[in-house]
This record gives sequence, structure tokens and C-alpha cells, in this order.
Amino acid sequence: MVLDAKRVLAELGELHRLTGDSAAGARRVCWSEDWTRARAFLLERLEALPVKVERDEAGNLWALLEGDSDRVVAVGSHLDSVPGGGWLDGALGVLAGLEVLRAAAAADERPSRTLALVDWADEEGRFGRSLFGSAAAAGTLDLAAAAELVDVDGHRVPEVLAAHGIELARMGEAGGRLERLDAYLELHIEQGPVLETRGEAVAAVTGTAGTERRRLRFTGRSGHAGTVPMALRRDPLAAAARTILAVEEIARRHGGVGTVGSVQAQPGIPTAIPGEVELWLDQRHPEPGPLAAMVEETLDAAGATAREQDVALAVEPVWSIEPIPFDPRLVELARGAAGGGEPIPSGALHDASEVARAGVPTAMLFVQSIGGVSHAPDEDSRSEHLHAGIEALGRLVAQTLAG
Amino acid sequence: MVLDAKRVLAELGELHRLTGDSAAGARRVCWSEDWTRARAFLLERLEALPVKVERDEAGNLWALLEGDSDRVVAVGSHLDSVPGGGWLDGALGVLAGLEVLRAAAAADERPSRTLALVDWADEEGRFGRSLFGSAAAAGTLDLAAAAELVDVDGHRVPEVLAAHGIELARMGEAGGRLERLDAYLELHIEQGPVLETRGEAVAAVTGTAGTERRRLRFTGRSGHAGTVPMALRRDPLAAAARTILAVEEIARRHGGVGTVGSVQAQPGIPTAIPGEVELWLDQRHPEPGPLAAMVEETLDAAGATAREQDVALAVEPVWSIEPIPFDPRLVELARGAAGGGEPIPSGALHDASEVARAGVPTAMLFVQSIGGVSHAPDEDSRSEHLHAGIEALGRLVAQTLAG
Repeated sequence: MVLDAKRVLAELGELHRLTGDSAAGARRVCWSEDWTRARAFLLERLEALPVKVERDEAGNLWALLEGDSDRVVAVGSHLDSVPGGGWLDGALGVLAGLEVLRAAAAADERPSRTLALVDWADEEGRFGRSLFGSAAAAGTLDLAAAAELVDVDGHRVPEVLAAHGIELARMGEAGGRLERLDAYLELHIEQGPVLETRGEAVAAVTGTAGTERRRLRFTGRSGHAGTVPMALRRDPLAAAARTILAVEEIARRHGGVGTVGSVQAQPGIPTAIPGEVELWLDQRHPEPGPLAAMVEETLDAAGATAREQDVALAVEPVWSIEPIPFDPRLVELARGAAGGGEPIPSGALHDASEVARAGVPTAMLFVQSIGGVSHAPDEDSRSEHLHAGIEALGRLVAQTLAG
Repeated sequence: MVLDAKRVLAELGELHRLTGDSAAGARRVCWSEDWTRARAFLLERLEALPVKVERDEAGNLWALLEGDSDRVVAVGSHLDSVPGGGWLDGALGVLAGLEVLRAAAAADERPSRTLALVDWADEEGRFGRSLFGSAAAAGTLDLAAAAELVDVDGHRVPEVLAAHGIELARMGEAGGRLERLDAYLELHIEQGPVLETRGEAVAAVTGTAGTERRRLRFTGRSGHAGTVPMALRRDPLAAAARTILAVEEIARRHGGVGTVGSVQAQPGIPTAIPGEVELWLDQRHPEPGPLAAMVEETLDAAGATAREQDVALAVEPVWSIEPIPFDPRLVELARGAAGGGEPIPSGALHDASEVARAGVPTAMLFVQSIGGVSHAPDEDSRSEHLHAGIEALGRLVAQTLAG
């Protein structure tokens, strides 16, 4: 299946001018006016095609092009963005998927299976729960917890959804659609520097890494920076600093990633020894065994350094998700479509993670990101790499339909 | 000279009930209503004594009891407190000094030299510059810089002073009074845990440590916590954590103190590698050579780890003061008056530092602080230790007058 990559890029540019700008970035926060405009942009283009368009109970948009069988091969991603996001994150996969439908509609024969394009709602987690729409369909969204979530402006989930005609309690019914899927394929930008470092345009993705997120609080004894000798201190920052270095060393040793993104010292003034230091810890690995080992070793190291410094340590689990491997057969097809390079794991989650968790054979393709920049207005990819990614998606869909 | 320590403690308690409370602490922020009330409390008691009371151009209050010579032996401290401060910090030295005047006035003979009590204005630095009144007298207050300072509520120095009849530009004229001083003696709580650890009630102070305060900013590259492999990171927090540990190790090795009181990571969210980390560094040592070595070694270590992590380092000097040794002869007298224990350096600054900088022979006595707690409502000292400190001050004044 040959896709018109040039048209995809032209439409991505048009969408970006409509719902964002180059300085402040994309504004397609889910359920916002700009996001609604982006959906309308997609719907206009779908009207020109012989497809059935439906919105499911979770607000995900489906466009179905009938094939010889009612089993479905779906392509998709998400039109929504973070505030001040990039022009490609999500939109690339949706508009490339639109081009898949166009190519199939223009073909002499109808496809062997039904083709679907899906635009998942609220991938970026406006309310703090990412993959909102795909998780609802996959049955992994905790509806009771979701009902309590608010966005940065204090808007609550049920009200925002109701304004768009969606009933939170019924979102799980969207899951019925996944039962028809034989395959789910997603093209996305990498959002990291691996392909750039390797000098590759496109790669297949092995799956998404598991994530373990925790809050660590070290409590010692504050005091005057001048009057408390070093030997009499119980400085929680000394323990926190050793833990930060342990997180780094442990991640390197296991081939995962470990990040302390936030560190807060209290009272946080230059003339006082901190009395309390809080770290936010995020650890990821594509395999469950090494991920569990990373967590265990980090908590052991934090506990040992806390004891050495005579400070207390409290650990609070914040969030976790297990590693989600994609379908080996589809990953192999994706590898071929991408040119044969070594598939890479995804450290970020994607709607594909939720679809795979629901048991649908899934694969993804990553396009190289310039400098690995993500969730920022200057997120970008080279034009030739985008072309290569879109064309690889066309080959992958064709081979999946044939398989 | 025998002081009535019981009366001093009774008056300290009375002052505290008048200008603070046990839960929220002392409220005697300089130039406030409660501080004015504290001064009035002192003035009432001075009225009963044969002393001349004067306020100098910097707002410091002097009470002079004439002796055989017009050369002056002064005792003093400060009535002002931090917001939510303790009942003893500053007030102990002033009310013990009041008792010195009472004892001298009750004696059969007048003292060999004039005795003075001084209550320094704004020791705690309501506008961010501590030792405000004593520095003005010592000639070390930068008047142009002071004119720009504001307090936490945005009140500017010149307006606040003017409301109390003080003209900023003329504050330096207060310095004339220091020329008459043969000695300045200050009793203060330790505000640290050293005497408690040693099991001593009172000690002489060798001088105040030099302080070097800097802001260190490490700038690396932010990125997605999941998508950037460890080997491709330029994480400023990794460099900052190593620097925090170096500060600690270097302080221990040189017998000084080193504190990172504040650490801020940007953007400071759990899912992003920090792009920038800022540390506030405070290093102190009683001797200039080791202090300079501490600073140099710390900046070398920070620079080396920044290069290793491929992050940029910017160092901004914030504030510094050299070590100020007290007068060896007076320190020896203070040691004797305190019971003979080893004198200790002060890691905190005191009005005595400014007086000593101005060339006046100076000494201090420290009273043990419970748990080293300072600048907090639960700051306290044991009653018997306060008695011992007040009595030691009486002996020290007598020996200084005799010397």
C-alpha cells in the first residue's frame, strides 16, 4: 500500500496552523475548542471517503472501511496534545492513518479485512490519567477514581465529558469494538534520542516499558546552617543525594531508565539544614524481572543510606504499570517494513499499550525525533524521516492485511 | 558582680507574654508594634536606674551608667526576634545587661569605667540584611544597597525607618559611640547542639565563623523520563547530587560546616529529566585559610562533576563575611567566667561580630540550647543553664572592669 506522505505532511501543517502555532506549540488539549476543531478537520476529510464514522462510548472516533471480512485491522493514534505540545505527537499517526484509508479506498479491490482508523480521546491525560480513551476501551480505566480527577483548572471529569455527551459510567462499553480487531498498528514519533544516535529514520517497537513511580520522603532534623557541626547533623539531603546517585547507577546496570524528576527540600532556605527532602522517582524497564530488581535495589539503597544518616524514610507508591510486549509476529513485520533495523523498546506509554493489554495483536513504528525533544513546541522530525515512517506504515498495513 | 538571675528569667517571661506566646513564638520583629512594646518594657525599667538613655542614629538604644572614666564597657544584644522566634534569642543578653546596670547601680562604689547597655536594632534582618543596627554603627552597612531592601510584606527600608524618626543616610553616624568602647560583652544562647553534646552549661566564644554563600546552577538537557536512555542523558541533578556529597565531605575534612539548604529542579515533574538544578550553598569556618580551601575544593568538585555529566555550571556569589575572631584577652576572661571549659566558635553571626569588626575588644558567652533549636517557638534552655550564663556574665563584667 503506497501512501502519499507529502499530503500527510501538508495536512499536518494545516492542522497545526489551525490548532496551534510555532511559538506556543499545539493547543489540542482533549475536549478543548482546539481539539474539537482538530476532530472537525479529520471528520471533513473522512466525509470524502467511503467509510462509516462512529464515536464510541469513551469518545474515541472510529472510521471503518469495509473489507471482505468484518474482522478489523486498525491503525490509529491521538489528535490531542499536551498544552504547548508539538505538531507531530499523535497527529502523525492519525493523519497517516487517514492516508491508509484513502489508499485503500482508491485501490481496485476492497481490502481482505475491514480497515479502521481510530483517534483515541485524551491520550495525554488532561486529568492526570494518560491513555484515558484507550484505557476505557481496554477496561483498565478505574471509573470510580476517574470520577474524582480534575484538570489543572479544576474542571472535573464527569462534567467535561457530559458537555461532550459522554457518560463516564458507560465508557467501558467502548471495549466491545476491540473484540473485532485482528491487529492494531500505530505510527508515532520516538520522543527520544535513540534513533538519532543510531542514525536510523524508522524502527519497529518491541513494546512499552513497565513503569514504577514512587515518592520518597527523607525526614531528618533541621537546624541552623552555621551552628550545627557536621557530626551532629541528621541531614535528609545527604541521604537523598546518595539515593539519586543509586537510582542512576542501578538503571545503568539493568539497562533501564531511572529518573528523579523532582526534589524538594524543606524549609528550603540557604541558612537552614533541611529537615525533610522529598524525591519523585520514576523507573522503567521493558522486562518485569529487571524492573522489579531495579525497584528493590533502589529501595534497599535508600533505606541503607537513610539508616547511615540517621534519617527516616517513607516510601509512597504513586503509580505503576507492567511492561507490555507487542505481538512478536507483528513486530517482525514492522521491523521489515521499517527497513530491518533492530526494534527498540518504548520508554513512553502509548494507546498501543492499552490495546495490547486488551489482548489485541499490536505493533508500533517510531520515527526519529530531532534531539529527542518531546512535549514542547520545538518537537520536530526531519521531513525525509517522516516520509520514511509514513511509507513504512503503508507497507506494514499491506503485510498485515496479507498475513 | 552578682546578678539576680531569677529576676532576669522572670522579666524574660514577662516580656515573652507581652510580645509573643508559647505556641506561635516571639513576635518582636524590628520596628513592629510588638518590638516597640518590648523597647517600652526595657525603657520603663531603665527609668528606675541612674542611667542616661539615648537612641543613636541607627536606632540602637544605649543606657549609660557613669563610672570613674568615660571609657565604656558595654554589654548588649537585641530585643528583636524573627517572626515566630524564641523567647531567649537576643532578649536574654539585653535583660541580663539590664541586671548588670542594676547591680552596678546598687553597688557601694561607682564602677571604674562607664557601663553601657546596648539594644541593637534589627539584628535578625527584617529586610534580609542581618545585624542591621550594629552594622550601621560599625560602618559595614552598605547604605545604597540597604535603601533598596524590602521586607516580606514589601515595605521599604527608608519608609519603615522614617516612621521611627530614623534617616537611613545618617545611620553611619552611630559609629561615633563605638570609639568610646573599651570592651563589648554579649551573652546569647548557643542556637546549636555543641554544649548539650558536651554536657556544659556555658562557654566562651572564640569568634564568629566566616560565611561564604553561593548559588550554583547546573544546566543540562531536559527530556522524557521514559525515552532518553541513561547513556544519552545530560542530567544536572546527577551533577548536583555529587556536589551535595562533596560539600559534606569537604566540610567534615576541614572542620567547618557546609550546607545545601535549597535544591530546585526544573521543570520539577516526575516524568521529565530535570533540565536545570539550582543549589544554595552556605559554607562556614572560623579561620580564613580553611574557609577559602573549602570554597575552592567545592567549586573544583562541582566543576569536575559538571564536566563529567556534560552539564554547564554557573556560580553566583550571594554573600560572604570573613571570620571574625574575638579579643584573645577577653575570650580568656570569658572562659574563666564560664567555668574554664574549652571556648567554641560561633557558626552564627551576632551583633558582637560587627562590634569586633569595628575594632572594639569583644567577647561572648553562650548558654546551652535544648536540642540546638533556634528561630522557632520551641527554642529553650534549661533554667539552671540560664542562671549559670547570667552569673557568668556578672563575673565577666567585673573582671573586665578590673582589667
